Amino acid sequence: MTIQPFKSVIKNYNVIFLDSYGVLKNFNGLIPGAIETIKYIIETGRVFYILTNDASRSPELLAEKFHNIGLNEINAQHIISSGMMAKEYLGYKIRSGKVTYLGTEDAAHYIEEAGLETIAITDLDLNDLDDISALVFLDDEGFDWNIDVQKTVNLLRQKNIPTIVANSDLTYPVSNDEVAIAAGGVAELVEKIVNKKFIHFGKPDGRMFMYAYELLMRQGNYKKDEILMVGDTLYTDIIGGNKFGVDTALVLTGNTRKERAEVLIRSYGIIPDYICESIGS
Amino acid sequence: MTIQPFKSVIKNYNVIFLDSYGVLKNFNGLIPGAIETIKYIIETGRVFYILTNDASRSPELLAEKFHNIGLNEINAQHIISSGMMAKEYLGYKIRSGKVTYLGTEDAAHYIEEAGLETIAITDLDLNDLDDISALVFLDDEGFDWNIDVQKTVNLLRQKNIPTIVANSDLTYPVSNDEVAIAAGGVAELVEKIVNKKFIHFGKPDGRMFMYAYELLMRQGNYKKDEILMVGDTLYTDIIGGNKFGVDTALVLTGNTRKERAEVLIRSYGIIPDYICESIGS
Amino acid sequence: MTIQPFKSVIKNYNVIFLDSYGVLKNFNGLIPGAIETIKYIIETGRVFYILTNDASRSPELLAEKFHNIGLNEINAQHIISSGMMAKEYLGYKIRSGKVTYLGTEDAAHYIEEAGLETIAITDLDLNDLDDISALVFLDDEGFDWNIDVQKTVNLLRQKNIPTIVANSDLTYPVSNDEVAIAAGGVAELVEKIVNKKFIHFGKPDGRMFMYAYELLMRQGNYKKDEILMVGDTLYTDIIGGNKFGVDTALVLTGNTRKERAEVLIRSYGIIPDYICESIGS
Amino acid sequence: MTIQPFKSVIKNYNVIFLDSYGVLKNFNGLIPGAIETIKYIIETGRVFYILTNDASRSPELLAEKFHNIGLNEINAQHIISSGMMAKEYLGYKIRSGKVTYLGTEDAAHYIEEAGLETIAITDLDLNDLDDISALVFLDDEGFDWNIDVQKTVNLLRQKNIPTIVANSDLTYPVSNDEVAIAAGGVAELVEKIVNKKFIHFGKPDGRMFMYAYELLMRQGNYKKDEILMVGDTLYTDIIGGNKFGVDTALVLTGNTRKERAEVLIRSYGIIPDYICESIGS
Repeated sequence: MTIQPFKSVIKNYNVIFLDSYGVLKNFNGLIPGAIETIKYIIETGRVFYILTNDASRSPELLAEKFHNIGLNEINAQHIISSGMMAKEYLGYKIRSGKVTYLGTEDAAHYIEEAGLETIAITDLDLNDLDDISALVFLDDEGFDWNIDVQKTVNLLRQKNIPTIVANSDLTYPVSNDEVAIAAGGVAELVEKIVNKKFIHFGKPDGRMFMYAYELLMRQGNYKKDEILMVGDTLYTDIIGGNKFGVDTALVLTGNTRKERAEVLIRSYGIIPDYICESIGS
Repeated sequence: MTIQPFKSVIKNYNVIFLDSYGVLKNFNGLIPGAIETIKYIIETGRVFYILTNDASRSPELLAEKFHNIGLNEINAQHIISSGMMAKEYLGYKIRSGKVTYLGTEDAAHYIEEAGLETIAITDLDLNDLDDISALVFLDDEGFDWNIDVQKTVNLLRQKNIPTIVANSDLTYPVSNDEVAIAAGGVAELVEKIVNKKFIHFGKPDGRMFMYAYELLMRQGNYKKDEILMVGDTLYTDIIGGNKFGVDTALVLTGNTRKERAEVLIRSYGIIPDYICESIGS
Repeated sequence: MTIQPFKSVIKNYNVIFLDSYGVLKNFNGLIPGAIETIKYIIETGRVFYILTNDASRSPELLAEKFHNIGLNEINAQHIISSGMMAKEYLGYKIRSGKVTYLGTEDAAHYIEEAGLETIAITDLDLNDLDDISALVFLDDEGFDWNIDVQKTVNLLRQKNIPTIVANSDLTYPVSNDEVAIAAGGVAELVEKIVNKKFIHFGKPDGRMFMYAYELLMRQGNYKKDEILMVGDTLYTDIIGGNKFGVDTALVLTGNTRKERAEVLIRSYGIIPDYICESIGS
Repeated sequence: MTIQPFKSVIKNYNVIFLDSYGVLKNFNGLIPGAIETIKYIIETGRVFYILTNDASRSPELLAEKFHNIGLNEINAQHIISSGMMAKEYLGYKIRSGKVTYLGTEDAAHYIEEAGLETIAITDLDLNDLDDISALVFLDDEGFDWNIDVQKTVNLLRQKNIPTIVANSDLTYPVSNDEVAIAAGGVAELVEKIVNKKFIHFGKPDGRMFMYAYELLMRQGNYKKDEILMVGDTLYTDIIGGNKFGVDTALVLTGNTRKERAEVLIRSYGIIPDYICESIGS
């Protein structure tokens, strides 16, 4: 396993796609060197996008969180979230009725921006489902498992509606060695119980890559071999980038720890083009 | 699909294994005719056992619940629960330390009867896991999803201990058309997140059948072709009975409704030997 | 379940994406009315693409097969196959070495067009794998199961290389009521045995939709709500179209028979916007 | 990871259950010391059974294969094979008609011993299925993948019959570093394609343990804590033994190599009570 300095790797690419958590920041806050690397990318005329499995809040609020830790160069227009993909889907496919959701009001923003009326699953009356036209799993802080997840199951047993998972991640880290169950985990359980196929957004799915690529095309005639996808997770960032046809760099500051990287690459069969200690390296 | 009267079917068998929920009772209470059928079984010298995926309370308390709805002939010694299988396992394999559990104190009885000290997951300190020797998913009322399930995930990320699922059912019915998520559902989600193999008890697993069969052998030299398994669920009761090598009767008073029975039998490929409206038919 | 005439449905759309098998033709040959419908689409200035899970031969040879049954209006440039997606991936990501494959020489065209040297798995020497850089499951006629599939498993146990499944379908129809196991089925078995993640192409994956959309953009400024995806299979065509954000029409001339359509839509939870008897209706 | 000499471990047990392949023999033939260990077990008055996932030939022929490598003390009555479990099932549940099978004629012995007429899938006429009452996946040498597996799929699409998998193993070793796909692998693929639930025999399923236990009871009043299960595979031998409630010893002469043992135990969460180099240690 050859580990290369990130600075030398990105020299070969004009466009950098970056995962957020585990790449730019982690439970300890900012990854050392992240600010300098983003500045270098910008100053050398490179283009970057953040591709993040997140459906907890709007790109504007996500950008604000970057600013809070000193990453002032990252703005809403740099951010492509799985919540945005879900919003796009809702805008195209759901034309009437109310959309019910699990998640916070901050997250419901994605549904409302699609021009749809929302109702939290908590407030839903299972005896009055006539105008409910879709269900969305948003990010998961702020709902009551005992009541809300059970209600979700019973809603889907009673009414056959499109169900969207705006972030497929099973867990999210809450500290150095603890995780919490994410909306994607809940969705997976409900999907198994009701035996239906939900519509999942987020890496490794190709949609976010495509969306970033389309934004990129408006800025110039970039080719895929000019793009590097940087991520900390083999089965989302790296396989997603590989499948989209761009080069991939694994960083060791998140889900894939240095001592396990080689074993994991071998055992999943997901092979990054580069391995770097961190984006600060 | 030929539907036969239950009374004529059981004439051919000297031993009847019965599922509980959906067979003897359901959300409406007692299945009409259940008392008469149990009396008939006893009066004609037949033997019966209740095989139930239940890890919520002791056989004594389960029998009490039957008495409350008029099934006075059912006693603790008729009842074989998946909780008993878990207890047996713990008795054989866990010799020291404390066992932590998700579920009620009523359910913790199964662990204590195995002679082991227990600690509810709620009361567990993740920084002090030295003497924790096993984890058990009991039945699920009474724990806090937000806190306890997350703690369970983090426990298993930190310590590699045998994990037992005392009831594998994903849901349990709470009314005519609503279900709640059962411990088995939670266990399945945690198993997927931590990527380990738990030890599951409950039908379709053969252990409860075997246990009933051993009890039966103490009462006489019965053969397998004298036994009928009666259940309402194809993928637990019927496939379990089929695999154990006994004849099986599907009743239509629980999970498998009359109008869907034929489609479900075809689509699962699980074939009961008989179909009856109810055990009262 | 409302069934609408296809002719009235397509009036609302300027772009039609069509699946091939089960939509334009099936085991009985051409679907009655297919020629007239394609002519109508062309004459009214509408645009169409064929999106087909097929990695058996080049678009040119696929077009020739359409001509043989009278669909002379369909040319190679109308056809987007999962084999083309695999070819694109190989072109971007595999830069050296030889690519080994399961499938026919006709199918190997896709690898060669990506500028790569090929070697059939049959001709591979497992003791000389140094220059083997990728494995591709192409379409499946013409390889020996006993020897070739076993060799594939042992190749992947020995060498960690990117593995591409150029058509994820599990089976393909060979007559009115018989199917054969397709490359996607073999790939799924091998993936399970070696416990690695392959890169799968073909609907429901979004890549073919995206590719068609990009071709479309070169012909005019079409919007997604002008596009209709027409297919016979819920879990590839319809969920794929739904997720891509276009309207979908299910036709009943292939995998989804009229008498089962309503049950399948309910049980999968995949909901087409329209249901039509056939594209000739 | 503490490694203990096998000789000291078995001192604590009066009954030894042993897996065959990877424990008594492997691709290099007899495990060094196996003969001495079996002799020691017998001479000290201990009881042993071989529990093997094998449905290729009768216990008599399996014993003969042991004799051929010098293990003369192992007789048919020591052997409990998954094929025997399938035979038992067929004897209880299939009462008329013909049973069709994938596998060799040697394996078909198991069906014939159950008193049933057999027909190899190769000889089956898909237009004349009236008297076909069950399908069995036996061990797999000697059938033609291209023809027979496809026929199996089409049989199950046409007729809903009980389907038995007499050995669930996905692969079997053919040399030091190569494997072949076993009947269990084929069965898994077919099960996925036809979307039905087959009846699987073989470890980790508890039936073989139970069967051995019943034989044991006829020889004396043994308790479970007198039994040690010895195996080389965590997810069959060890989890099966653990779940059955007996102590388990992992040997490092088969599927679980010494250098990977600790990682595998951790990552599966399947914990043996002992680890030994080999049964000769």
